[in-house]
Amino acid sequence: MAGSVRTVSIFGATGSVGTSTLDLIRLEPEKYRVIALTANGNALELARLAKEFDAEIAVIADAAQYQILKEALGGSSVEAACGAESLVEAAARGADWTMAAIVGCAGLPPTLAALACGKTVALANKEALVSAGELMIAEATRSGATLLPVDSEHNAIFQCLQGGHIDQVRKITLTASGGPFRTWSLDRMAAVTPEQAVAHPNWDMGAKISVDSATLMNKGLELIEAFHLFPVGLANIDILVHPQSVIHSMVEYRDRSTLAQLGSPDMRIPIASSLAWPDRMETECKPLDLAEIGNLDFEAPDYDRFPALQLARSAIEDGGVKPAILNAANEVAVAAFLKGAVQFLDITEIVSRVLSSYSPPQPVSLADIFAADEEARCRADLVVEEMKV
Amino acid sequence: MAGSVRTVSIFGATGSVGTSTLDLIRLEPEKYRVIALTANGNALELARLAKEFDAEIAVIADAAQYQILKEALGGSSVEAACGAESLVEAAARGADWTMAAIVGCAGLPPTLAALACGKTVALANKEALVSAGELMIAEATRSGATLLPVDSEHNAIFQCLQGGHIDQVRKITLTASGGPFRTWSLDRMAAVTPEQAVAHPNWDMGAKISVDSATLMNKGLELIEAFHLFPVGLANIDILVHPQSVIHSMVEYRDRSTLAQLGSPDMRIPIASSLAWPDRMETECKPLDLAEIGNLDFEAPDYDRFPALQLARSAIEDGGVKPAILNAANEVAVAAFLKGAVQFLDITEIVSRVLSSYSPPQPVSLADIFAADEEARCRADLVVEEMKV
Repeated sequence: MAGSVRTVSIFGATGSVGTSTLDLIRLEPEKYRVIALTANGNALELARLAKEFDAEIAVIADAAQYQILKEALGGSSVEAACGAESLVEAAARGADWTMAAIVGCAGLPPTLAALACGKTVALANKEALVSAGELMIAEATRSGATLLPVDSEHNAIFQCLQGGHIDQVRKITLTASGGPFRTWSLDRMAAVTPEQAVAHPNWDMGAKISVDSATLMNKGLELIEAFHLFPVGLANIDILVHPQSVIHSMVEYRDRSTLAQLGSPDMRIPIASSLAWPDRMETECKPLDLAEIGNLDFEAPDYDRFPALQLARSAIEDGGVKPAILNAANEVAVAAFLKGAVQFLDITEIVSRVLSSYSPPQPVSLADIFAADEEARCRADLVVEEMKV
Repeated sequence: MAGSVRTVSIFGATGSVGTSTLDLIRLEPEKYRVIALTANGNALELARLAKEFDAEIAVIADAAQYQILKEALGGSSVEAACGAESLVEAAARGADWTMAAIVGCAGLPPTLAALACGKTVALANKEALVSAGELMIAEATRSGATLLPVDSEHNAIFQCLQGGHIDQVRKITLTASGGPFRTWSLDRMAAVTPEQAVAHPNWDMGAKISVDSATLMNKGLELIEAFHLFPVGLANIDILVHPQSVIHSMVEYRDRSTLAQLGSPDMRIPIASSLAWPDRMETECKPLDLAEIGNLDFEAPDYDRFPALQLARSAIEDGGVKPAILNAANEVAVAAFLKGAVQFLDITEIVSRVLSSYSPPQPVSLADIFAADEEARCRADLVVEEMKV
């Protein structure tokens, strides 16, 4: 790779992962040539970035913003496009390295199209593996694509596996901060307000993911991702509560030697590790100072107070579209909680009820996933209505 | 390597590292064929092991034990030999994998001979790198030999570098338990008895190394080893006090991603990692349970209360035979302390005085190292006499 220029595309270029990726590319612009940049609705920012990086094409998902994008790109050589099909077409151009950072199920078709090219795909879209893990892994296997997980936990595991082999692994341990209610009783958790739930101790994140972090559903979703990314079997993936979130995850090999990846809570570190892989790039992130941090704590997770963990394990065991249902029902439940329609502990109860209410057949395409997602949302809405405060 | 039989030789077969290595070979005997086993003076045990493993040759260092060895091997096909030259000759047979676990400077000639064969040498002899680091690394480079460090800290660093490259490293952190006097004042340390100094919190070890662990000279010696093994420059090797000794050492890459190796305090884990490298073997060692351990603590080392660390840094900076002098003077000083001839804090004072008393020319052979070692011991004896309690 030394000396050669790598072509890159970034799906979700105006979001936090996308802008961090572009920040890193700015550090070594001579190493990269940008093919496609995409955004959901921020056409002006997308146009600005596409011109700065001299992209081949800029795609705005929201067709209503297309004219704004086209005008803002006027006079430049950047091609403008819009809509879901253009996202897939841009992904199919097959950059050497694609960042899949579109949020939600909208990210699935372009991610699958990027994987089909057999190049390297850095994966920051949770739904790709949670809802469509089997399809994604099958496509990557078929095309020979390399999947680089960007999430700090999975990126940590990926790094701990470098130089090793998955067959040599005895156990993978996903660390979890434990969220803001780690030490709270169930009674106290029953009265949690949305304001309390969105205050996450270690990472600065949006409301939805903060609530997921508080219920530990976030860790349940990561368990599903890890299950697909690292084929060691569900029984060999543990969750360990580690409030400081300094150890991002660990791999124990069969000789009982454990490798762990650690770092400051800065998403640019795993993104940089994916961007430069298999090389390493210099970043300006804060180095880890364990003497300053002083101590790291660990405890087993409480499956009684945090039923999301068991729901995720069961969804994996049941397979098929169950993980997609879990994810969709959780989105509805969290939105209802944030609106004040249901209580904090109702979130996992809603997910549990939706999961046990039906069992669709094994999915064979993204259409099956989308159908399951949609039905799960309808069913979750009904459960929310029943439970409304 | 799969399916093929690897030839192995073990120098220091009756010591703790040697017997642990043989225990691991017993787990997968079909994978190994033993060439040479050696011991210092325990001829009967050596003969028993050589017969059990059907070794080609058994070498006893102490010539006075040769007849016992020869008689004990009577009727077997194992060749018997004795003395320093036979050790070198056995090493020169060039096993695919050699464990260099002879204690002290007696281990240097066979280790150098094993490195000259260009195969793989697992290094458990501290003096090889502390006293003769430049010669050893030069020989390994010339012959193309692979050096696998067995010491838990250096083995940890080696593992964290797998899949990476030394050029991508920003910092290496050697962890240190801090020893039994980590929290003691200098006044209190002045009155330390040999009994207090040999009680090490985490590892079961001999009196000499326990005292080295209490003065942190052990970490100073490991710093010298790390300097030779991992060419990142002395300024980029840090020492971090970590009383639980669960994290064995760490590597920070330039993207600020840190990899660490962790494990139970069991020497079989790094030995197994070296024996099976680049594969991994199943061991029966206790898996790490961080939830059970609960917490890990970290603090910066105190260079005032533990001057051994600065002595080691200065010896590396001065280069040549200074590290060999440091090691030899320390052995004499520790022996004097254990006999009650000098005080605990005198140990590093003796080393410091010997180091600053003369500056021999750059060594070009093991003979120069041995001469420096011998002179350092004489000078240290004189300082001990002056300081005698």
